[in-house]
Amino acid sequence: MNKILLNGLVLTMNGEWKPEHLDIVIDNQKIVQVKHLSESEVTNYIEQGYEIIDMSGKVIMPGFVNTHGHAAMTLLRSYGDDLPLQEWLEQKIWPFEDKLTDEDIYWGTKLAIIEMLESGTTCFTDMYFSMDRVAQAVEETGIRACLSRGMIGVAPNRDIALDESKQFISTWHGQADGRITCTLGPHAPYTCPPEYLKKVIALSEFLDTPLQIHVSETKKEVDECIETYGVTQVKHLEDIGIFNRPTIAAHCVHLNDDDIDIMYKYNVKISHNPSSNLKLASGIAPVAKYLNKGLTVAIGTDGCSSNNNLDMLEELRLTALLHKGYNLDPLIIPARKALEMATIEGAKALFLDNKIGSITEGKQADIIAFDLEQTRLYPRIDIVSLIAYSANSKDICDVFVAGKQLIKNSNINMDKQIIFENSQKIVDRILHELK
Amino acid sequence: MNKILLNGLVLTMNGEWKPEHLDIVIDNQKIVQVKHLSESEVTNYIEQGYEIIDMSGKVIMPGFVNTHGHAAMTLLRSYGDDLPLQEWLEQKIWPFEDKLTDEDIYWGTKLAIIEMLESGTTCFTDMYFSMDRVAQAVEETGIRACLSRGMIGVAPNRDIALDESKQFISTWHGQADGRITCTLGPHAPYTCPPEYLKKVIALSEFLDTPLQIHVSETKKEVDECIETYGVTQVKHLEDIGIFNRPTIAAHCVHLNDDDIDIMYKYNVKISHNPSSNLKLASGIAPVAKYLNKGLTVAIGTDGCSSNNNLDMLEELRLTALLHKGYNLDPLIIPARKALEMATIEGAKALFLDNKIGSITEGKQADIIAFDLEQTRLYPRIDIVSLIAYSANSKDICDVFVAGKQLIKNSNINMDKQIIFENSQKIVDRILHELK
Repeated sequence: MNKILLNGLVLTMNGEWKPEHLDIVIDNQKIVQVKHLSESEVTNYIEQGYEIIDMSGKVIMPGFVNTHGHAAMTLLRSYGDDLPLQEWLEQKIWPFEDKLTDEDIYWGTKLAIIEMLESGTTCFTDMYFSMDRVAQAVEETGIRACLSRGMIGVAPNRDIALDESKQFISTWHGQADGRITCTLGPHAPYTCPPEYLKKVIALSEFLDTPLQIHVSETKKEVDECIETYGVTQVKHLEDIGIFNRPTIAAHCVHLNDDDIDIMYKYNVKISHNPSSNLKLASGIAPVAKYLNKGLTVAIGTDGCSSNNNLDMLEELRLTALLHKGYNLDPLIIPARKALEMATIEGAKALFLDNKIGSITEGKQADIIAFDLEQTRLYPRIDIVSLIAYSANSKDICDVFVAGKQLIKNSNINMDKQIIFENSQKIVDRILHELK
Repeated sequence: MNKILLNGLVLTMNGEWKPEHLDIVIDNQKIVQVKHLSESEVTNYIEQGYEIIDMSGKVIMPGFVNTHGHAAMTLLRSYGDDLPLQEWLEQKIWPFEDKLTDEDIYWGTKLAIIEMLESGTTCFTDMYFSMDRVAQAVEETGIRACLSRGMIGVAPNRDIALDESKQFISTWHGQADGRITCTLGPHAPYTCPPEYLKKVIALSEFLDTPLQIHVSETKKEVDECIETYGVTQVKHLEDIGIFNRPTIAAHCVHLNDDDIDIMYKYNVKISHNPSSNLKLASGIAPVAKYLNKGLTVAIGTDGCSSNNNLDMLEELRLTALLHKGYNLDPLIIPARKALEMATIEGAKALFLDNKIGSITEGKQADIIAFDLEQTRLYPRIDIVSLIAYSANSKDICDVFVAGKQLIKNSNINMDKQIIFENSQKIVDRILHELK
């Protein structure tokens, strides 16, 4: 149904934006007008049957774009925390993941999607398996997603993974009214040998699809790459030709200046995942350098076993704070930049900025609203600063994806209980099996 | 009224605690029993007129203890963010603070108190001025606080500040049914010359009162201390004799190994303020070293102009994440330690651990509860991990201070609207005056 969001205070994330009282006219999926409507214009729209949604006392902005994650890993939330990395992976994460069925992944993804919608994410990125069921969850819930079947080039199923990727992309790219886009998901340079990555590149060219890949998450993997190939991971990937394809590189914690030059040369997009990098003790990415260089840096939560939530507001706040303190410079990543990194820069990172990431005429109506009537949003001096540094993700009261209102006054249009119950059942079953 | 919190999952923070289903019997202000009550015991209590509060589906823990802040600075929230430090202080913070009246501080403190209660803080620390009005706000709202009149030894009112401190402590220490305790608040080594600090020490001895002081927040102030006195701030404070008095040192971002030895020798308590230190680009405190040494490290939010909220759950999560990443060690500050730092270690830091900080028979009933029925608290594998890494402060649904329930099912027992309105009016007035 066509609708008008009336009287909100809007942060468009479009060009030289500043907070403005604007009305937003939505025709089906799309934003068609962003301006202050006169009374007669509103009356006219009402006569045409537009639904009027009063957004007084609310701050409106584009939904968050979560540029890296493994949604179904929400099922592993709080499992095996605070352990050394290898023990965590080998004794906890991998054995648990081995037990996951397609059906489990469907429910785990649904749990993740509710959490993301409730905290204002309208588009998420996924790299996992059983992707048909992930796509089904996306289709059913109404969220937008950029999906990839994770491919591990050293695994026995490496060729099946390539076939499944091809099949998955052919089936799902552009589906769910265009809410689903697909990319290829080679896991990482240390799990995908050069010959395998070359096959991935060929498939990416054939399908005309971008890639997402983990890059230089830990110092260890970079050191091992230098030992094996004589070059850093980034140089290694350049040599193989990965960056000739449009690429989203997740993490990028350990890049040197030459690596950064390479990233710039190929316009590789970076997904910064600060909570995950801190929690797993991977380190602190040199994000200030990336931004100075002019790279596109977006934000991601990573999966729930290394975060342990999918809250993009926490993540953008951490991004804004961390790099000031780490670089001893209070001017790094001001509030507006942090908000942009979580929205329009996210859209750019996913090659979707012609479609989402800002409140702009012609773009999809992926929109969230904060209820300003909150203790921590008083007094109101600088709204941008309040949202970036003070707000709580539970202050997000309305969420629209592709013009459809999925959350209205903090109520989501889904049966949460069945998702909670199924998630808990799955985990109880797997933990029992692992005993 | 006497009451029983029945059927909650309790994190006592007491000794070798683990999550346990326990019932908590509260007589007036105090916890008198923590155990699983039999049905007949419950019946017996009901007959004696105890109120039964069903806590099924809730996680109960001691309220957070915020060990450093300037509550009324909540009025400056979002004012002058993202500026260089000196410009921020000289052109924004100080001129604004100059305009604050006693009445303004009363309302600003009330706004801070609501925010703290709503996010689970039951005891806060304050260092500011117009402290009689701050104490009044504490008395009226029912929260617990450790208050000090800030004293700047280079200011024209330095001797008045000493007199006011003495007067304030004589009037308020132990008031509000014991919820108010007082300390002396010499601002910092760089604003309090040695002769002044010696007067503070004498007063501290006379009143038998601890001290709170900012220590080595920025590298610049440490360097200047070395230039002026030939020693670090910590050594300088030791030489003056400050640490012969019980001391809470806020920030402690730039301490060397010798400084840490001194802190240990005198058992100086540290209040770690990670958000503030990051946002103001002061740096990252070597908290892992402090903990290895065996120092008491508690957590504080600092004031709202450098944070910009008073959310202790955000602060303890940041503490848990930041030092793992900064030290490249995933075992630093596990979930349970982070929760302890925000509760029992906070109580120790304020010299109140005989009274608050854990759910222990004989202690004050300062208790909070999380409603577990939240998307981000599924699935439930490790409750301690869920609270520390996943929960949202808005999941805190019940707050008790000194046995009195101040928040019940997420509703606070105060008129928030009048506090919001007055805060906004004050800020509008001051910003107008500053034009």
